[in-house]
Amino acid sequence: MSYLVLTKNRYDDSQRRTALVIHSINNNLEGDIRGIFSHLHASEAANIMHYLSVSQRSKLIKFLGDDFDYYILAFLEDAVREEILHKWANDKLGKALANLDEHYALEILSDLHPEHRKAILKLINHDDRVFLEKSLSYPEKSAGRLMSYQIVALPLNWTLEKTIKFLKNAKHLPEDFYYIFVVDLQNRPVGHISLSNVYKFDKYSTLSDCMSDEDISISSYSDQEEVALIFKQYSLVSAPVVNNNGKLIGVIDSHIVIDIIYREREEDFLHLAGVEDDGLHSNTIDTTKSRFKWLFMSSCTAMLSSSVIAQFQSVISKNAALAIVMPITASIGGNAGMQVVAVIIRALSNQQISKLNAARVLRKEITVALSNGVFFASLFGLISYFYISPKISLVFSLAILVNIVWSGFVGMMIPMILTKFRFDPALSAGSFLTASTDIVGNAAILIAASYFII
Amino acid sequence: MSYLVLTKNRYDDSQRRTALVIHSINNNLEGDIRGIFSHLHASEAANIMHYLSVSQRSKLIKFLGDDFDYYILAFLEDAVREEILHKWANDKLGKALANLDEHYALEILSDLHPEHRKAILKLINHDDRVFLEKSLSYPEKSAGRLMSYQIVALPLNWTLEKTIKFLKNAKHLPEDFYYIFVVDLQNRPVGHISLSNVYKFDKYSTLSDCMSDEDISISSYSDQEEVALIFKQYSLVSAPVVNNNGKLIGVIDSHIVIDIIYREREEDFLHLAGVEDDGLHSNTIDTTKSRFKWLFMSSCTAMLSSSVIAQFQSVISKNAALAIVMPITASIGGNAGMQVVAVIIRALSNQQISKLNAARVLRKEITVALSNGVFFASLFGLISYFYISPKISLVFSLAILVNIVWSGFVGMMIPMILTKFRFDPALSAGSFLTASTDIVGNAAILIAASYFII
Repeated sequence: MSYLVLTKNRYDDSQRRTALVIHSINNNLEGDIRGIFSHLHASEAANIMHYLSVSQRSKLIKFLGDDFDYYILAFLEDAVREEILHKWANDKLGKALANLDEHYALEILSDLHPEHRKAILKLINHDDRVFLEKSLSYPEKSAGRLMSYQIVALPLNWTLEKTIKFLKNAKHLPEDFYYIFVVDLQNRPVGHISLSNVYKFDKYSTLSDCMSDEDISISSYSDQEEVALIFKQYSLVSAPVVNNNGKLIGVIDSHIVIDIIYREREEDFLHLAGVEDDGLHSNTIDTTKSRFKWLFMSSCTAMLSSSVIAQFQSVISKNAALAIVMPITASIGGNAGMQVVAVIIRALSNQQISKLNAARVLRKEITVALSNGVFFASLFGLISYFYISPKISLVFSLAILVNIVWSGFVGMMIPMILTKFRFDPALSAGSFLTASTDIVGNAAILIAASYFII
Repeated sequence: MSYLVLTKNRYDDSQRRTALVIHSINNNLEGDIRGIFSHLHASEAANIMHYLSVSQRSKLIKFLGDDFDYYILAFLEDAVREEILHKWANDKLGKALANLDEHYALEILSDLHPEHRKAILKLINHDDRVFLEKSLSYPEKSAGRLMSYQIVALPLNWTLEKTIKFLKNAKHLPEDFYYIFVVDLQNRPVGHISLSNVYKFDKYSTLSDCMSDEDISISSYSDQEEVALIFKQYSLVSAPVVNNNGKLIGVIDSHIVIDIIYREREEDFLHLAGVEDDGLHSNTIDTTKSRFKWLFMSSCTAMLSSSVIAQFQSVISKNAALAIVMPITASIGGNAGMQVVAVIIRALSNQQISKLNAARVLRKEITVALSNGVFFASLFGLISYFYISPKISLVFSLAILVNIVWSGFVGMMIPMILTKFRFDPALSAGSFLTASTDIVGNAAILIAASYFII
């Protein structure tokens, strides 16, 4: 099947295919499996593998044998890839890397233990190794790790005729490229020509005549999140990467960036819920450990906030109704605060907040918190007035107001401060926030109760 | 400044530029502002505008006058764009849309009120209007809304010579394109040639000789999230869009997809924290209303879970220490459950979970929950044994265990069920989850207390 229309039921198709593979594995239909996989794109094969159990995956790989397409590795989730590579001998892995595109080989190497990586690198031929070691010398998640060294860069004064002749005869052009980058005598990028524009000009025009000169370069040390933001901002398909002297050293293409955005955004999403690892594909023990870490942290903050309650046990025994309204106060403060936290984290990662507008944003958040605070204080005050008691109503509504306004303030400050000290706000802002709103909410109720009720 | 290196301090540069603009606006330096903006990319100008207050933005637009680059509209956050367009007369908006790329014009039109949209469409010239109306006829967030109709599609039997001649002489080629799509006699896409490969073949080869025939098409009715997933899976730069008969009708390029992924992922991130609108840029009243909606919903669930506590007031008055341990039980269950919810939502949106592996994933989640449940039950049991009382310790640890295991189960089931009924799990799974873990956690403690303590 060389032509594949992805229609509405593409998902169903892939489900049917996956079900067929599972059936074939369970019934040891080795021939059928080879048949199915010979028609699949590596990413489709990877998708199927994500649905299998560990033992089904082992069996599948055994059945595929030498037919196993190394490009499948490039599309697997990290945890699944690790699980597979863990079982491979070094020479097999070396062979796989040698067969892969530089970018994917690099990604797989980056994930390996440094010792293991060293051993594998030794097995790779000299040219490839030099390249891989050079890339690995850039910091993790930097543009230097993402870029390809295969780039078409030509001098300003070349004519289109000469350029086209070069493209026809050059031996080592990249497999796919979209721009010809134009460089000056110092090899600094000064513009680019999209390949689709090559035809629009006279063959005697020079590159400097027909290039688009408003060009964007990326520093090789830029963080990948910044690279993604630059691609988004300038609607890029391809961007030159330069070293500290502004000299052209590589290129990053949009399909790499699409992958990065997926990863970065998923990481933020999972972090917001306190999940640090991949979650779905890692094994039970790793998952338990990684979930445990964060649960333990948040338990400590829960104990802290309960220790506040412990100071007021006598107040509670006299007014058990306080135990009914405390969770509501804590929860609404936490929820209101998380809304602010998420908005601020998003603004930070899109570079839309800084000291230039922080005061205005804070003012707005406090206003919003005050408005909702007054509303919810009145609502809960009214309900508890009739269903519990006027005194509880007073204490309850006061605490609701205080806690919502407080949540507006800390919801903004916590991610700002964490970012300033280079912590990932998505991962930890939530814990700090709930700790603070739990404590303030409960303390407000219990202190007010000690004054007004007892 | 035609050449711009984006180095480490790009953010600082943009901050300095923004500060300068704010200063110039506040001091009515109209000339300075025009000067700065004449050198900016539309996206840079948009970024600056995101930092301004509403009145500063109005002033800026007044100062820029006819120099206002309509492309800035394409890069503004929705709330800011709405704020600006709201003040524009219809004919000005019509003129802006006529000047914009079809994709951006469409996006702006999509956001308008249907009545307003109709009025604006009337002001646009016939050809553009026909195109825009056709695009608007596709469902929101579908591939049909994203695609461009400007596509280079040539027949299988053309030679490269003929193709190159065509590219040189054609009048209405897209401004930038990366692939030549190859179509059969029924105008169905059967392959593509990357422009960089045109040079690799002999000029007498036909397109069918040199095309890459493993081609991916996107149905015009596919959801944009699916479009993004397809681009990611197949590392695409450009993809053909087909109608129900498989005929080629448009093309989607990667820069559009990058924008979509940003939006979709940010939406999920904000939804997980209960934020439905843009949050940072919408005005105080809109923000208050939209935050209120979700807070109100989560307050109702908080009241529901407190109503469980209310049934046990007498138990609590006799054992005020229960009020100390209840919030911990509820919070750890909620946190453990949110971890599962996030992992499942991510798996759902990446199409990595279905009935084929749901049972295995659930088994794993329950095992993880059981392991962590036993640990935390022991930990808190031990602490409360010494600091509170043996009886509370028994009740507390039992409830912790029950609630964590329960959270593993509902954390998986809630997003699966919501997705089955086509609700957005990111937006509502959290509320349902916390409601259920609050209720189960508190009920477990209070019921156990009624048996073992009283």
